[in-house]
Amino acid sequence: MALGEFQLIERFFAQSHVRRPETILGVGDDCALLAVPAGMALAVTMDTLVEARHFPVDTDPCDVGYKALAVNLSDLAATGAQPAWATLSLSLPEADEAWLAAFSAGLFGLAQEHGVELVGGDTVRGPRVITLQLHGFVPPGAALTRKGARPGDLIYVSGTLGDGGAGLAVASGGLACAVADAAWLRGRLDRPTPRVSTGMALRGIATAAVDISDGLAADLGHILERSGVGARVELEALPLSAELLRAASSAQARQWALTAGDDYELCFTVPPEQAAAVAALPVLCTRIGVIEAATGLRIVNGQGQPVTLSATGHDHFSGQQ
Amino acid sequence: MALGEFQLIERFFAQSHVRRPETILGVGDDCALLAVPAGMALAVTMDTLVEARHFPVDTDPCDVGYKALAVNLSDLAATGAQPAWATLSLSLPEADEAWLAAFSAGLFGLAQEHGVELVGGDTVRGPRVITLQLHGFVPPGAALTRKGARPGDLIYVSGTLGDGGAGLAVASGGLACAVADAAWLRGRLDRPTPRVSTGMALRGIATAAVDISDGLAADLGHILERSGVGARVELEALPLSAELLRAASSAQARQWALTAGDDYELCFTVPPEQAAAVAALPVLCTRIGVIEAATGLRIVNGQGQPVTLSATGHDHFSGQQ
Repeated sequence: MALGEFQLIERFFAQSHVRRPETILGVGDDCALLAVPAGMALAVTMDTLVEARHFPVDTDPCDVGYKALAVNLSDLAATGAQPAWATLSLSLPEADEAWLAAFSAGLFGLAQEHGVELVGGDTVRGPRVITLQLHGFVPPGAALTRKGARPGDLIYVSGTLGDGGAGLAVASGGLACAVADAAWLRGRLDRPTPRVSTGMALRGIATAAVDISDGLAADLGHILERSGVGARVELEALPLSAELLRAASSAQARQWALTAGDDYELCFTVPPEQAAAVAALPVLCTRIGVIEAATGLRIVNGQGQPVTLSATGHDHFSGQQ
Repeated sequence: MALGEFQLIERFFAQSHVRRPETILGVGDDCALLAVPAGMALAVTMDTLVEARHFPVDTDPCDVGYKALAVNLSDLAATGAQPAWATLSLSLPEADEAWLAAFSAGLFGLAQEHGVELVGGDTVRGPRVITLQLHGFVPPGAALTRKGARPGDLIYVSGTLGDGGAGLAVASGGLACAVADAAWLRGRLDRPTPRVSTGMALRGIATAAVDISDGLAADLGHILERSGVGARVELEALPLSAELLRAASSAQARQWALTAGDDYELCFTVPPEQAAAVAALPVLCTRIGVIEAATGLRIVNGQGQPVTLSATGHDHFSGQQ
């Protein structure tokens, strides 16, 4: 049974599980009408997922819905913003009710956790391409950006790195390991945990922040470029999960950590006197290096000797992913 | 020469021609940061264009860029909102510099006209799918919605209807007519004029409004459903362009006007005492019918006799377009 577009939208997306008090008008008109709280800046971010490029074709549609929101929550986290509203563009080859039911369950499950209300969007027939825009609030002076890192600042990352790259290798059959480790790594690829509370806690502490979607080297590179500084990163300090270290060599694990992307952890810089505040964050954050005045990213081994990277990160057009 | 994603973004999209004073941080960070003026609601709308579905494959990329913004401006117009910021998701099969140059010229040309600043988005490799989200301002109490039409209200449309449908027939080779008329009709399909100033002028005048993207019958139907009313529309009152009437029979022209969509005119309702205010609008608006208490849409001919529609409008999933 084929449902019409409008019926599909009503059935799966008109009922946002979250209702925010600042929403004047949600799904169902030409525009949504939203009241941003006084004194708050609106933070907006938009990410697009293309099937077979940003998620493997065999990905559970529930995880696709989850990830479409999670990658945007990760951008808000890097800004220190509190999530509020989402809009969703769904281009789908057919009106597949089972797919939509699973997708919306994954999306709304995570939305509920973070108080995100779906307030609008578009649904069209076409190749499977999903674009989600997320809106959040942040006091303008407290927003974290890529600009602001200063020489002497310590560089930290949340969680562990390289799991996303390993998960993609598991999905493509390129990594053989224990079933439990494979499932955990695949879960890190498909259902990354956006560091929203960590990002909000870093207001007033971090001097710069970015989320690691394209690999540490590329994303930290954005901080360095915007801040006009350089960095020294200790390769052996990169936090790696026990699952990743069982599944792959440490050299391979570090390579993924630096360049594979899809980790959705935060990389941020703090003045040395804020180290105690970082230690008190709810998520384990690891110091991996230091900001230096000389521009460029220097990766060093345990002996302090420079290490050369074979690739600087993921690039959607010229990269291989 | 293939350019990397980041270079492409910088080259074509980092330089928004418009800078708005309310923009705290634009393109180039994890989130854009925006300050909505005090006392204004934020109006947001998102539309997706899929190649071969929402625009013919031979469409000039300049017109694709124009239309991606125009269809969203049309939604803001239907809300009575003033345009402010756009975000753009571009999924493209290759890094085609000529295509991007033309697309961005079309987009930024219209953006400049309406004071729209591009503040963020995403660029990925994939099938050609374009999603644009537009943000605008409107005093919350003055926003136009689909709800609010009352029995006795007069129904108006701006401009002329059916040109978009005829333009699509021209594009597909299904309509043979004079070259100048064909070019004009194709122009109405590819470069519709969003009725932004008309929408803003209708604040405090219209009781309900919608933009005609899916055909008058379907879009007026949204007003009727949301307002819990019905309508009588006089078929022969529908405003048709001279070009359309030269290119097609009046029966075909009216059919396109009612059901083809892609016109991006406004349909709105006003109390009879506001008829003089409508006559003073900068764009010619035509009275086509009246809101009635009995639900349903009744289309009548010059003798007041009911006319039956063969299709009620465009539906992206179950329709043919």
